Amino acid sequence: MPEFFPEVKKPIKYEGPKSKNPLAFKHYNPKQKILGKTMEQHFRFAVCYWHTFKGTGADPFGSATMVRPYAASSDPLALAEATMEAAFEFMSKLGVKFWTFHDRDIAPEGENLTETNKNLDHMIKIAAKKQKETGISLLWGTANLFSHPRYMAGASTNPNPAVFAHAAAQVKKAMEVTKELGGEGYTFWGGREGYDTLLNTDLAREADQLGKFLNLAVDYKKAIRFKGQFYIEPKPKEPTKHQYDFDAQSCHAFLQKYGLMDHFKMNIEANHATLAGHSFHHDLAYASANGILGSVDANRGDRLLGWDTDQFPMDFQECALAMYYIIKMGGFKTGGLNFDAKVRRQSYEPVDLFYAHIGSMDAFAVGLKVAAKLLKDKFFEKLLKQRYGGWDKALGKDILSGKMSFKDLEAYTMKNGEPKTQSGRQELTELLLNEYLTTIS
Amino acid sequence: MPEFFPEVKKPIKYEGPKSKNPLAFKHYNPKQKILGKTMEQHFRFAVCYWHTFKGTGADPFGSATMVRPYAASSDPLALAEATMEAAFEFMSKLGVKFWTFHDRDIAPEGENLTETNKNLDHMIKIAAKKQKETGISLLWGTANLFSHPRYMAGASTNPNPAVFAHAAAQVKKAMEVTKELGGEGYTFWGGREGYDTLLNTDLAREADQLGKFLNLAVDYKKAIRFKGQFYIEPKPKEPTKHQYDFDAQSCHAFLQKYGLMDHFKMNIEANHATLAGHSFHHDLAYASANGILGSVDANRGDRLLGWDTDQFPMDFQECALAMYYIIKMGGFKTGGLNFDAKVRRQSYEPVDLFYAHIGSMDAFAVGLKVAAKLLKDKFFEKLLKQRYGGWDKALGKDILSGKMSFKDLEAYTMKNGEPKTQSGRQELTELLLNEYLTTIS
Amino acid sequence: MPEFFPEVKKPIKYEGPKSKNPLAFKHYNPKQKILGKTMEQHFRFAVCYWHTFKGTGADPFGSATMVRPYAASSDPLALAEATMEAAFEFMSKLGVKFWTFHDRDIAPEGENLTETNKNLDHMIKIAAKKQKETGISLLWGTANLFSHPRYMAGASTNPNPAVFAHAAAQVKKAMEVTKELGGEGYTFWGGREGYDTLLNTDLAREADQLGKFLNLAVDYKKAIRFKGQFYIEPKPKEPTKHQYDFDAQSCHAFLQKYGLMDHFKMNIEANHATLAGHSFHHDLAYASANGILGSVDANRGDRLLGWDTDQFPMDFQECALAMYYIIKMGGFKTGGLNFDAKVRRQSYEPVDLFYAHIGSMDAFAVGLKVAAKLLKDKFFEKLLKQRYGGWDKALGKDILSGKMSFKDLEAYTMKNGEPKTQSGRQELTELLLNEYLTTIS
Amino acid sequence: MPEFFPEVKKPIKYEGPKSKNPLAFKHYNPKQKILGKTMEQHFRFAVCYWHTFKGTGADPFGSATMVRPYAASSDPLALAEATMEAAFEFMSKLGVKFWTFHDRDIAPEGENLTETNKNLDHMIKIAAKKQKETGISLLWGTANLFSHPRYMAGASTNPNPAVFAHAAAQVKKAMEVTKELGGEGYTFWGGREGYDTLLNTDLAREADQLGKFLNLAVDYKKAIRFKGQFYIEPKPKEPTKHQYDFDAQSCHAFLQKYGLMDHFKMNIEANHATLAGHSFHHDLAYASANGILGSVDANRGDRLLGWDTDQFPMDFQECALAMYYIIKMGGFKTGGLNFDAKVRRQSYEPVDLFYAHIGSMDAFAVGLKVAAKLLKDKFFEKLLKQRYGGWDKALGKDILSGKMSFKDLEAYTMKNGEPKTQSGRQELTELLLNEYLTTIS
Repeated sequence: MPEFFPEVKKPIKYEGPKSKNPLAFKHYNPKQKILGKTMEQHFRFAVCYWHTFKGTGADPFGSATMVRPYAASSDPLALAEATMEAAFEFMSKLGVKFWTFHDRDIAPEGENLTETNKNLDHMIKIAAKKQKETGISLLWGTANLFSHPRYMAGASTNPNPAVFAHAAAQVKKAMEVTKELGGEGYTFWGGREGYDTLLNTDLAREADQLGKFLNLAVDYKKAIRFKGQFYIEPKPKEPTKHQYDFDAQSCHAFLQKYGLMDHFKMNIEANHATLAGHSFHHDLAYASANGILGSVDANRGDRLLGWDTDQFPMDFQECALAMYYIIKMGGFKTGGLNFDAKVRRQSYEPVDLFYAHIGSMDAFAVGLKVAAKLLKDKFFEKLLKQRYGGWDKALGKDILSGKMSFKDLEAYTMKNGEPKTQSGRQELTELLLNEYLTTIS
Repeated sequence: MPEFFPEVKKPIKYEGPKSKNPLAFKHYNPKQKILGKTMEQHFRFAVCYWHTFKGTGADPFGSATMVRPYAASSDPLALAEATMEAAFEFMSKLGVKFWTFHDRDIAPEGENLTETNKNLDHMIKIAAKKQKETGISLLWGTANLFSHPRYMAGASTNPNPAVFAHAAAQVKKAMEVTKELGGEGYTFWGGREGYDTLLNTDLAREADQLGKFLNLAVDYKKAIRFKGQFYIEPKPKEPTKHQYDFDAQSCHAFLQKYGLMDHFKMNIEANHATLAGHSFHHDLAYASANGILGSVDANRGDRLLGWDTDQFPMDFQECALAMYYIIKMGGFKTGGLNFDAKVRRQSYEPVDLFYAHIGSMDAFAVGLKVAAKLLKDKFFEKLLKQRYGGWDKALGKDILSGKMSFKDLEAYTMKNGEPKTQSGRQELTELLLNEYLTTIS
Repeated sequence: MPEFFPEVKKPIKYEGPKSKNPLAFKHYNPKQKILGKTMEQHFRFAVCYWHTFKGTGADPFGSATMVRPYAASSDPLALAEATMEAAFEFMSKLGVKFWTFHDRDIAPEGENLTETNKNLDHMIKIAAKKQKETGISLLWGTANLFSHPRYMAGASTNPNPAVFAHAAAQVKKAMEVTKELGGEGYTFWGGREGYDTLLNTDLAREADQLGKFLNLAVDYKKAIRFKGQFYIEPKPKEPTKHQYDFDAQSCHAFLQKYGLMDHFKMNIEANHATLAGHSFHHDLAYASANGILGSVDANRGDRLLGWDTDQFPMDFQECALAMYYIIKMGGFKTGGLNFDAKVRRQSYEPVDLFYAHIGSMDAFAVGLKVAAKLLKDKFFEKLLKQRYGGWDKALGKDILSGKMSFKDLEAYTMKNGEPKTQSGRQELTELLLNEYLTTIS
Repeated sequence: MPEFFPEVKKPIKYEGPKSKNPLAFKHYNPKQKILGKTMEQHFRFAVCYWHTFKGTGADPFGSATMVRPYAASSDPLALAEATMEAAFEFMSKLGVKFWTFHDRDIAPEGENLTETNKNLDHMIKIAAKKQKETGISLLWGTANLFSHPRYMAGASTNPNPAVFAHAAAQVKKAMEVTKELGGEGYTFWGGREGYDTLLNTDLAREADQLGKFLNLAVDYKKAIRFKGQFYIEPKPKEPTKHQYDFDAQSCHAFLQKYGLMDHFKMNIEANHATLAGHSFHHDLAYASANGILGSVDANRGDRLLGWDTDQFPMDFQECALAMYYIIKMGGFKTGGLNFDAKVRRQSYEPVDLFYAHIGSMDAFAVGLKVAAKLLKDKFFEKLLKQRYGGWDKALGKDILSGKMSFKDLEAYTMKNGEPKTQSGRQELTELLLNEYLTTIS
């Protein structure tokens, strides 16, 4: 079997903060225990197939740049096979235990759906074998319902019900193969579920179509006894002008309206949250507060750019806050940190894929160390307890339990006069947080 | 009684498109019937008290500029009385039949809530008298829960329950006086219901507080038999970094979660929608599609600026699309078009207030004419009917009625092959829409 | 010769505002005289080769959608030839008298530069023949220095001087063929002249490289006696994070620093101006005020999206302001309105190309009518004359002529006291402008 | 003399990273030498008078919140005197050696300019005395030409030349008192030098006015032999829609056009750079590359908000990059790091002012440590040397020296074929930079 990443001879190792080897972990030590779990268990890192193995470096103004030795064959299936080999070689060398894919990433489309499914079955068998050999598992699978021209006006939200049908057929198969590979989840990203112009769009109708689609998916999940978790992945725009799954709260509205709250959690992506005008940890906090945080697409946008740059997450402060919320909600159950990130167009060498993942895994490891210290010290708990303390006393409890009406509250105010204020202490909090961020052990 | 707007001797009149008088309407002809209603009935224009009569022209970098002859007295109550006189004089001359206010716009705060309420009662009596004299009605009332320092960390979402109590007392009173004045609605804009930094914020707790507050308001509404409509007004940010009522869809999530869907509609503001990353008509369309469009704050932002500029709406294309959605949903019931807009800091003369309102009323009148033509021609209906036609045939109906499972849809796709696509015709639609916009009768 | 656009049998005609034919002009009447010139002479409309004939509809999330009957051949040169046929058929039927192209749009790259140049020469001969047959001229030519991987880190600003050399060779040839075709200008758009991360970039060095490159181009222009106008096209970002030619004013800094002011004008693109945080007419006004407005890339962005959407310009208010500035500066000399715009991905049929161009040409025709009326009425002149009148009187003249020092100005102020202010009248101006925009003859 | 900040009894001390005292420096050790200079000499920290002592916490939606014990008097001059006392007490306790002010921050406006100047002279005498007592120096002075209504349409760019005259008189005096206090610089921030709408603006005329104004300032500087450095402070928007001093490069265009390059340097503000769509270190790099980096307004914006939040700089990664560029250009000469930052509206207690400054000074100290290590290791130098190495060899030198024409470069390319590319290594660079940021000694 050919070796596609000869630049990296052996699996990447933890060498500690003093190592000068860029192909080693300085902070990510998979078996190191923190707060009762190993780092590996905390993160459940996944490599994504699309960017990492299928990304070409093309952008709207330029063609492919990536040098990928496994992408030599002009025969689609042979190419798919070599890519699968390369993928498992890369993941093994990197030491990541999960992967994620779209149906069309791993197997080429054929002349028709029957042939396409046959291609997929062929590749799934290989994937199953590679999983067994390497001990790498499927975090979640998904179907690509946005690249093919048939989906240009949406998949389930398409003006043509035959496209809805095609999407259903494709998701059905993708769920089946996800189950076959033991996938722990299945993700719905509505890549074209939105509009390019509201002038030609019936928003109400399209929402109903999407609601029906996901309900049918839930039905089929039961039918085949797939036990994995369903995720919705919010994104506000791009490729369309407006995506219906705008952000976590918008998805929350949708899930409630269509009776789907028991069946879906969120797959929050950092860059999508910032495109929506939020911070990454805002969307984590919102989803967590509403019991719908399931998994995370770990990447980073450029806040000065208005498109999805999908950069590798290297900002350890953001990673610290993300890990804080993830641990607070009890850690990942079925989800994990999926690197839905792509190397820059100029980082075209295979070894850049290693640098990118290593850098991000280390950034998260630093983040985890910080988060663990914050948790041990009850840093935020204490701060919030002091700030919101009144809600745990008589007045607060009576309000929330429904004992006090507007009339009672007016009487209280008339009697007690002007409420006391307290400083928000934002700068002090930032100062104290920096003390954690500048002392990484 | 003094005249505060002597520049305008008589009520503004409709003089038709050929008039060269800037103090006349060219398109807004209140009694002209369009689609079975007068223009006046369609729009239900309201003047807002805060910007129009209390706005000073101050901004974060400069002090007050507005010349307001009625704002001469240094005695707070005398000032309030003169302002009320001026307000009704202005509205009468402008020919607008509705107004809107916050409690603190019309009456000064006193030493304590009792005194403040007394001031408010005093002014409400005057307002009731002026309403009677002029035939001007209250579109909606509201309470200012964001300007006073006590609310700096939120009103109902404050870390201190005593502030929640104070806000409750204030809303209680504001609802009472709104009812007293025959207000057709009551609006909740959560001006500080959000956070400046997530680092010191318990998002989950604050959402519960807000949910409880609005439920208590519903209870009190029933208790006093106030029949007006409750509105929530979405805004994504400013003054806080993140406002919980981010946009229409976010509010929809909130209303569903806290059991409030039967009790609230949306008051959609154009500039808030664009700050949230949407177009004005998107938020109208979303609210309308979900049966929660109630009223509109008519203004405009500058899409190149990141703050709430609250400019007067002069873009008649936007007005046309807005009126289209409003008429499509059956027109306003209790709501209307409230000019929550402020003259620019340099437009400091009283007469600028007339120019601004006249220009906007004419822009909406142009928009209404365009919308009426679009509706008569069934412009969008035809376009959508052709585009979504498949959903009204067998396959579409069977999908939506639940007759077809994923398995059935796969079988359908296997049998029928690749679905047909159709051009989205965005450019043609824009071209045709321009034909309407360039032929205003 | 095959007909590639059989949907349109005959050249598009002017049929006037009442026509219901979407394949006719309602406002653009090429021979109609306005302000002493025909519409055709005012606009000098050009069709761009890249989007209109080579655009595929692919985007970062999806593959090609465009149906282009001329794009059938798998042989690159045969494909180029058929495309050229189609292009001139389209432009002839549309009735546009200018075109624009990049070297690589019209001829395929070969094995090496020699072969590539040979391909280009072959296609240039065909283009020259088609120009002669149709009477269509070249507005400007340019070289594509951004799509090929060799340019991924910039062309003249590349860290490798051999790439600078390659770019020089390519521009040399592109200038030669532009001259050969009688091109009236040559455009430099620095598609990758910028950086993806400042961390690996020497900004000072790269600016010097770019300065040298353009000076060498000026030298070569003289050497071959090419009389066309050189243009720089500003863009703030995309594909890179930061483009050195950020906006008109940034380019102005650059031209001054590198001694290029006599040799370059600006090619202002609407969508690039808005991405830079300006309005389209701001960048026109700035360039015009500094004598460097040369040509215009006519398109439109979506102000709620952060990337270059290159939509067809349909907003006739924007067109009116653009035409106002263009006529004010004396109209186009060598430049024109180049439709650097692409049909939406869903508008995949050939006929959509007609709708898009017709709609935009009509929008500009409406804009021209409005601009002409504004000019005839001296609308803005009068407004500005009144507003800035003081500068044409003694004090203003003495200040600008240098007669008054700070000391004199202090003495003046001490003597004359508080200066008078006047209302900015923004709302009145908007109101009056709407009167023009709603009465299109 | 009253003590206004009794919460802080003694000057803030350096206690090292392990201290748990929030009112101590953990990293800022003023006398510690790094790269041959003390920290104090590197930073030249300044406290700004306007935000820190005059800021009230008011925002467009709410009134003042700040508790400022020195702001008790209703007599303007007494208030000014107490504020000055408080300011020097605060700066002494904080241990900052520089301050900055606008004329109107420190002394109230009188009935007319003569009286206003008298007030200013009175306060300048006190300030001079306090400077002497405390050893605190003036980094730069400036005039407030944006708050008073007379400036609502601009100062030097006002449509009324009498306002230009007033601004000139004000700047004249401000320069005189800056000189009197031994100020090392004088800053021009064009707070209203821009427009609210282009519709009523003559951009060309206003630029000439601004050019004349600054040339007159240069003349007056010579006349009074003021030796301080002149700075221009770029800002893209706010309060106006468009500010003429948009960013560093725009100011560069302006300075060149009006012959001012020898007389001005830039005062770069972090939040202004990000509002302009750049990173903070981009504008530092640009100004530095063009020899016009003079001083820095140290603060931070919120990249998800579209207005000037002026937050205290706490992001030590940004501080590290800023310090890197500052040291690379040889360090500050006359300039320094001026905290043009304001505590959040909820941080209303006096002690919050200490937390904010301490946190920022420590963030910069961390940044300096990182920058020093990067410099010692020649981290970026090595990276750039390798990346741009070709430009130091024959081909690169020959290009830049002008030895090679386009023809020669074509010949070179024909001979040498396709240029070599190298990976941009962005992810590796980020990874390596994180190693510096996570090991703060």
